Amino acid sequence: MARSLPTRHARGYRVSGITRPNDKHLMLCSGRAFPELAEEIADLLNVDLVPTRQVTYANSEIYVRFEESVRGADAFVIQSHPAPVNEWLMEQLIMIDALKRASAKRITVVSPFYPYGRQDKKHAGREPISARLIADLYKTAGAHRLMSVDLHAAQIQGFFDGPVDHLMALPVLADYIKSKYPVDNMTIVSPDAGRVRLADMYTDRLGAPLAIIHKRRDPNKANEVAVGEVVGDVEGRCCLLVDDMIDTAGTIVGAAKVLREHGAAQVICAATHPILSGPAIERLNASEFEEVIVTNTLPVADTDAIPKMTVLSIAPMIAKAIQEVFTDGSVTSLMSD
Amino acid sequence: MARSLPTRHARGYRVSGITRPNDKHLMLCSGRAFPELAEEIADLLNVDLVPTRQVTYANSEIYVRFEESVRGADAFVIQSHPAPVNEWLMEQLIMIDALKRASAKRITVVSPFYPYGRQDKKHAGREPISARLIADLYKTAGAHRLMSVDLHAAQIQGFFDGPVDHLMALPVLADYIKSKYPVDNMTIVSPDAGRVRLADMYTDRLGAPLAIIHKRRDPNKANEVAVGEVVGDVEGRCCLLVDDMIDTAGTIVGAAKVLREHGAAQVICAATHPILSGPAIERLNASEFEEVIVTNTLPVADTDAIPKMTVLSIAPMIAKAIQEVFTDGSVTSLMSD
Amino acid sequence: MARSLPTRHARGYRVSGITRPNDKHLMLCSGRAFPELAEEIADLLNVDLVPTRQVTYANSEIYVRFEESVRGADAFVIQSHPAPVNEWLMEQLIMIDALKRASAKRITVVSPFYPYGRQDKKHAGREPISARLIADLYKTAGAHRLMSVDLHAAQIQGFFDGPVDHLMALPVLADYIKSKYPVDNMTIVSPDAGRVRLADMYTDRLGAPLAIIHKRRDPNKANEVAVGEVVGDVEGRCCLLVDDMIDTAGTIVGAAKVLREHGAAQVICAATHPILSGPAIERLNASEFEEVIVTNTLPVADTDAIPKMTVLSIAPMIAKAIQEVFTDGSVTSLMSD
Amino acid sequence: MARSLPTRHARGYRVSGITRPNDKHLMLCSGRAFPELAEEIADLLNVDLVPTRQVTYANSEIYVRFEESVRGADAFVIQSHPAPVNEWLMEQLIMIDALKRASAKRITVVSPFYPYGRQDKKHAGREPISARLIADLYKTAGAHRLMSVDLHAAQIQGFFDGPVDHLMALPVLADYIKSKYPVDNMTIVSPDAGRVRLADMYTDRLGAPLAIIHKRRDPNKANEVAVGEVVGDVEGRCCLLVDDMIDTAGTIVGAAKVLREHGAAQVICAATHPILSGPAIERLNASEFEEVIVTNTLPVADTDAIPKMTVLSIAPMIAKAIQEVFTDGSVTSLMSD
Amino acid sequence: MARSLPTRHARGYRVSGITRPNDKHLMLCSGRAFPELAEEIADLLNVDLVPTRQVTYANSEIYVRFEESVRGADAFVIQSHPAPVNEWLMEQLIMIDALKRASAKRITVVSPFYPYGRQDKKHAGREPISARLIADLYKTAGAHRLMSVDLHAAQIQGFFDGPVDHLMALPVLADYIKSKYPVDNMTIVSPDAGRVRLADMYTDRLGAPLAIIHKRRDPNKANEVAVGEVVGDVEGRCCLLVDDMIDTAGTIVGAAKVLREHGAAQVICAATHPILSGPAIERLNASEFEEVIVTNTLPVADTDAIPKMTVLSIAPMIAKAIQEVFTDGSVTSLMSD
Amino acid sequence: MARSLPTRHARGYRVSGITRPNDKHLMLCSGRAFPELAEEIADLLNVDLVPTRQVTYANSEIYVRFEESVRGADAFVIQSHPAPVNEWLMEQLIMIDALKRASAKRITVVSPFYPYGRQDKKHAGREPISARLIADLYKTAGAHRLMSVDLHAAQIQGFFDGPVDHLMALPVLADYIKSKYPVDNMTIVSPDAGRVRLADMYTDRLGAPLAIIHKRRDPNKANEVAVGEVVGDVEGRCCLLVDDMIDTAGTIVGAAKVLREHGAAQVICAATHPILSGPAIERLNASEFEEVIVTNTLPVADTDAIPKMTVLSIAPMIAKAIQEVFTDGSVTSLMSD
Repeated sequence: MARSLPTRHARGYRVSGITRPNDKHLMLCSGRAFPELAEEIADLLNVDLVPTRQVTYANSEIYVRFEESVRGADAFVIQSHPAPVNEWLMEQLIMIDALKRASAKRITVVSPFYPYGRQDKKHAGREPISARLIADLYKTAGAHRLMSVDLHAAQIQGFFDGPVDHLMALPVLADYIKSKYPVDNMTIVSPDAGRVRLADMYTDRLGAPLAIIHKRRDPNKANEVAVGEVVGDVEGRCCLLVDDMIDTAGTIVGAAKVLREHGAAQVICAATHPILSGPAIERLNASEFEEVIVTNTLPVADTDAIPKMTVLSIAPMIAKAIQEVFTDGSVTSLMSD
Repeated sequence: MARSLPTRHARGYRVSGITRPNDKHLMLCSGRAFPELAEEIADLLNVDLVPTRQVTYANSEIYVRFEESVRGADAFVIQSHPAPVNEWLMEQLIMIDALKRASAKRITVVSPFYPYGRQDKKHAGREPISARLIADLYKTAGAHRLMSVDLHAAQIQGFFDGPVDHLMALPVLADYIKSKYPVDNMTIVSPDAGRVRLADMYTDRLGAPLAIIHKRRDPNKANEVAVGEVVGDVEGRCCLLVDDMIDTAGTIVGAAKVLREHGAAQVICAATHPILSGPAIERLNASEFEEVIVTNTLPVADTDAIPKMTVLSIAPMIAKAIQEVFTDGSVTSLMSD
Repeated sequence: MARSLPTRHARGYRVSGITRPNDKHLMLCSGRAFPELAEEIADLLNVDLVPTRQVTYANSEIYVRFEESVRGADAFVIQSHPAPVNEWLMEQLIMIDALKRASAKRITVVSPFYPYGRQDKKHAGREPISARLIADLYKTAGAHRLMSVDLHAAQIQGFFDGPVDHLMALPVLADYIKSKYPVDNMTIVSPDAGRVRLADMYTDRLGAPLAIIHKRRDPNKANEVAVGEVVGDVEGRCCLLVDDMIDTAGTIVGAAKVLREHGAAQVICAATHPILSGPAIERLNASEFEEVIVTNTLPVADTDAIPKMTVLSIAPMIAKAIQEVFTDGSVTSLMSD
Repeated sequence: MARSLPTRHARGYRVSGITRPNDKHLMLCSGRAFPELAEEIADLLNVDLVPTRQVTYANSEIYVRFEESVRGADAFVIQSHPAPVNEWLMEQLIMIDALKRASAKRITVVSPFYPYGRQDKKHAGREPISARLIADLYKTAGAHRLMSVDLHAAQIQGFFDGPVDHLMALPVLADYIKSKYPVDNMTIVSPDAGRVRLADMYTDRLGAPLAIIHKRRDPNKANEVAVGEVVGDVEGRCCLLVDDMIDTAGTIVGAAKVLREHGAAQVICAATHPILSGPAIERLNASEFEEVIVTNTLPVADTDAIPKMTVLSIAPMIAKAIQEVFTDGSVTSLMSD
Repeated sequence: MARSLPTRHARGYRVSGITRPNDKHLMLCSGRAFPELAEEIADLLNVDLVPTRQVTYANSEIYVRFEESVRGADAFVIQSHPAPVNEWLMEQLIMIDALKRASAKRITVVSPFYPYGRQDKKHAGREPISARLIADLYKTAGAHRLMSVDLHAAQIQGFFDGPVDHLMALPVLADYIKSKYPVDNMTIVSPDAGRVRLADMYTDRLGAPLAIIHKRRDPNKANEVAVGEVVGDVEGRCCLLVDDMIDTAGTIVGAAKVLREHGAAQVICAATHPILSGPAIERLNASEFEEVIVTNTLPVADTDAIPKMTVLSIAPMIAKAIQEVFTDGSVTSLMSD
Repeated sequence: MARSLPTRHARGYRVSGITRPNDKHLMLCSGRAFPELAEEIADLLNVDLVPTRQVTYANSEIYVRFEESVRGADAFVIQSHPAPVNEWLMEQLIMIDALKRASAKRITVVSPFYPYGRQDKKHAGREPISARLIADLYKTAGAHRLMSVDLHAAQIQGFFDGPVDHLMALPVLADYIKSKYPVDNMTIVSPDAGRVRLADMYTDRLGAPLAIIHKRRDPNKANEVAVGEVVGDVEGRCCLLVDDMIDTAGTIVGAAKVLREHGAAQVICAATHPILSGPAIERLNASEFEEVIVTNTLPVADTDAIPKMTVLSIAPMIAKAIQEVFTDGSVTSLMSD
């Protein structure tokens, strides 16, 4: 159902001034953390990135200038957040400030990996809630909207005072796995108590049972390291360990070892965000995993260095989401099967 | 006078990105308090209400989901506020929050009866100003604009930090009265000192003189009930008692009795908001009134129960106002004769 | 280490005006949802509640007035949130507004059961995030601080823009269980994937292993009800089902049945918030549970109606926390063993 | 009931840093509009005004500097608002800004006559609500609290987002009248429909009946001047015309004439704010009034020029209110009989 | 590069509601300080000013009403700020408030001379930063954007939380000078240390060398008036003294005298803002200047009174800037050569 | 003048609740950028720094926890901002967030070198104003006050919405120079047009004349490097080049060379902030300077590497300022001679 109403001119009001049609203008801006991802998104949308001058001065301060008018634009500020994460965050905030002061009409932050997502609550007294702080910094700089992939906790959506488009890599990762591994003999394994909800979504998508690696401290022995117990059935099965991110890979590699000790036939891993800090590459190479599947929400510096790693592109999902946002379509419909 | 200016493309600027025409999209959403009113408005505008899932859970929490994309919409959230008013208010706030997070472009609250309008100032120390609180709650949830009918005090417009379209039922009520009663022999009566301004507007519209029922306490007799004096000429006349709302009907029914005791030939009543709490129906039925005329800013559960009540529809006025708002016309022009 | 510095007078500055010592003044205010809890807290702190007039008018609007000056007070607004939750929430917001306008210096919301905590994220598109909305409503009304017990997700701390004192009933519940049940033969059971983190905290506190009731849909059979599988070892053991709240009791009672079917020797339940909506009481009475242990964050209307229910008081923990807040002590220290 | 709690030192917490007693420090600052009033208040409180440099530069910009440290002060910024009202308002805003940036702890605006109070709503479309704008300007400059006398509409309290101490001159004015005029033979007269509420308060305080001068336009004769009718009994009586302010005195002097024509024995007038613009003095001198009683919320340039005017001081009421605010007492108690 | 994307209708979404094309509508509003400038801008843009009723009441309060619907307008509020500056500022704030409440879509303040620009920092303790206060007042009233010419300090751009279009009169002034005076023999002179940056821009634009009048106090002789030294080469040259504004003309006229004493062949002056307070006209007439060149950012009451003054119009630059803002073009491009 | 007023208890009000004396508690927190400076300040104030756990995780995210209750504290968050400046800024923001959520009463940012101070305006279109962004980020994180030394532009004070204590190193630097160099034969030299105001303050303090190195582009030769002219008298004199910071030292070292070429007898340099990026050390060592005098607002990694550099401590000035702020004294008085 769609009808039109006469304008005020047509209805005979006296109207001073000038009237002209109002256009929407999509513009993609990219930070320097991972320009290849932004370019891939731009290619999929068949647009050019806004030409931008970005400099880090000798004293480490960052300078940004857009080399084209952005007045009235529906701007998307794509930035990835590998280490050094604070640098890329500040660059993104400065870009947002420049867009705001240059009269961009609407500014959407696109942060495929949301920085500081793990500090989403006070685990102990006198801690920050950095994930909320980040949301407030984006808002203060001038962002109206936020787009991200697989937030560490879905509640982070509520940290931002405005619309959040929360994309999920699950369809991308699960489809790949389904096409390559025997789902009938698969068990989805959560590496600890905190990732069971995620594992649960995989069990629904792949129709496979659940298991957990559970670490328990002995309350009578203070400060003793907890031992991982396997809760659930893993013997002889293809175990898919799932997580939202792989940072130093300690937990996930330890979990793989435990699973093999408990008789797992095969261990693979799926995770959205390849942080891969410190000893991660070494650990993954030495691990029990047959394959480690991630997406490119973060750049993987040297994929050749980790032969068992497969990187799937998240760019098509982000490009489609940006198109839906720009055309007032539905991002929700992208997430459903 | 209206001219057009060339676009930036036409003027030869380099422009990255995609350009497309910008549409406006009106969407009407309705709470569950009085869906018949929203449907009447929608019919008049020839649109459908946005299909919405609204549930009150067993523990009394309310859940809302829009079943259609509302991205970029110019959304109007119609809710009426009969008892239980706090339920309907929270439902409306939750609807606004959902619209905001779903990227609606502009959100207009349509509350024909503004809740808590009578608590518009501190009558004594350590009281709330709930009418201001309500305005702030709407704003916090995400409302940009507010539309209401006959605010208890016109100053409530100033409580909201944004545009307020203040509609008046006076034309609807006065036209009905003029067509049915002898204006020449009519006196407009304010039931107390607080409604004289409203009565004054009726005197202008109907060309009739003014009277007041004035309650005065004897300063020498503390805690004694005040007696109502009639100030002005009512004997042998058709008395029109006016108020913005009828709640328990105590004041207005008492006023009718006093008027008859002072020789009024006929007593009728006009009020915008039929709250009709507690003993109201019983009192009105037993009252001196020949007719009680109200609008449907609030649902009247059982009109048959009050034979002397006439309910005029406010929907045409609201529909016209929404159309003016959506098309950038003039709501002010609707209010003038 | 603590030393003193000379005042400006002592240092010889010219100073106009009047100087007097600055006192702190703690005041407890209570809503009408569960005054017994507020009174218990007041007794433990050895203070009186602020005398308050609270009325629900015939049309269901709420009126509040404090009958004593609250100027400069460090005010705590204690309200419980059983059904009808929207009523009690609005009453609390109105109380906060009245305190703000009456010049209270600092206002702390004390909501033992945080309302709408389960709507802490968008589970689907076009939903509200009501838990964030509630935090914003408190802030808008004038609250500076928030105190609550066992938030449905700890991330809700980050929804409020200010200090949150997040208390945990775990010590109270676990100590009771430890004193009454054989911890050696106990298994902590999460009733679904979403409560594993909570179960995990119990395993640490009680030194017991973990199990999960896992519901899995068959991806090939759409809309089919998921069946609960038991992941972990429960046969012959004392199973402690844990949850943060018991609402209609459907999940938890179903879980108890599954556990008994899988050979559990004994099934008990611990939960912080006794919502007990709709069929909850009937279900619990008919259930496999030997004992259901809750706290009084919400009023339990008729404890005699559920013979197997034990209600532990949360008042001592809240009273201690208020005292720490008032005296600039440490709430964190209350939570540690 | 008042008890003390041990400090954290006493309870053995480790505490870094320095601890010292916290003093409250009251400071009175005055604008240049009516320094005599501020000095009278200061004398009553037995304090000196903060020495302040205030200059209007040649180009009409205003400069302010406090010549004494105001760090940590509980500052009251007293300014009156006679013509040119915009000058005195800007001076007050600039003083507030200077206090905020100089680290005053709490800033209370004291504006005995609230500027732009009459523009408290949109009387027609596309008007401002200047009274709300003023409240927001005060807040933006840095004011935490507001104190005023007889706001044109009590709802203006709700325009300010913070505590408002609303003082009333009624006790001062009514006590004077009671001591001098025969209350038994008195009628309180509202000069138009908009002041009936105020007249109503006088009838309660003085135990006298009510009358109204009512202006009514003939709806059949557009643009014709309305004629004033007297509603109520005034013949042979001592008529007290009441208003919140006397601006050009046209309405009130016209009302006095009408009352005399209707047989009033004596006409006097009481109003809080003596604006006395344009022809006011000439009109009052030529009027039917025996006495015109006002307060000094605004300066009366030349009291000798209006022999029938009596000016009562509002300073004692403001001084007492400031003392209550500073000492966390009760302003409400000052207003009650 | 510009492509189009299909709408949601085209993609087959179900869409409730009404869709219509979205127009942009430019409207120019003018304050009463200097209507001739606004009219000149309107003529250049070929539009009419919005008909507006503006009244200063007898008590000096200002009233504003737009006499045409401004709903959805892209409104520009042009006001100049000569003495009495506080009047014109308040008028502009009230106009902004009225536009906001009348649903204008975007409001741009156009203040060619930014009021209080010289109080842009604390020169001493306990001073205001009035220039920041002004920016906040504009924002609070409802302004989204700001346009101004030659801010006293460019940092004032950062005082406003939103886009600022900072225009410069330098091209207008310099082109006039270049066309009339021998640039080869010219020296650009800063009248004090604070204007060297401005003089520096002229040296770049005109290719002329720099000199400074430097005032230095003798640190051994407190309170002694500083003497102006000429730093740089001025003998026999055409000296162009530059400043952003001429207020009382004391500094600039004194500087001209010093330059002549040091052998300058010719002294002329260029400044953007002709404030011309107090003795300015008399001083300029009696001065050594051959010509004083200014723009009409402020009205010059009587140009005949200062025969050596030339007033260049700033209207074309403002008109072009408004057009660029309205059409999402580039204001930056207007400033470049 | 100081007197006391009776408390509400003394005046006989009924008062519920507990009253206790209110203490102020100063706490110093330090980031990890330059702990030696914070320790020096703490020693001067005779307090300990708050024990704090600060970790940079493997993926470069920063974690902070205070290991002592900070409830009710008057907290000062001292952080220096050498490279990598974004790291130290984020650490400081996270510390502020943790303090806010841990109920610190007042939070003062102490940033001796304000980061991004040079990006204090848009030098060209579509640039950020990063210095304003930084002020907003501090505010958003929870800072109430700001303390800094020698802001690049004094207007940055106005970027922060709250009190700013702006300290100046001039007294420290000038006193050292006066004690060591012949002021009679000294010329103060600004290295470019932008530092003349600073040089001017030195001329006042030291009683010495002014000179400028002025760079001028030839308008007829685009893109040609500007040549530095010396404006003022430097031959045979002791030239003191002044700047607020030394970054890569290119400008200042080039200026020294020009001065020697123009016959300067001796060249020394004074600057507050020793950034010393990239080639700075090498350039300074190879320069014409006899001595380069700076303060320790930033850490100088290896003072031995620059034999001609003298570092004066800013800690005493900051410690005194913190003491004045804490005790409600006057920071202004510290800056005056």
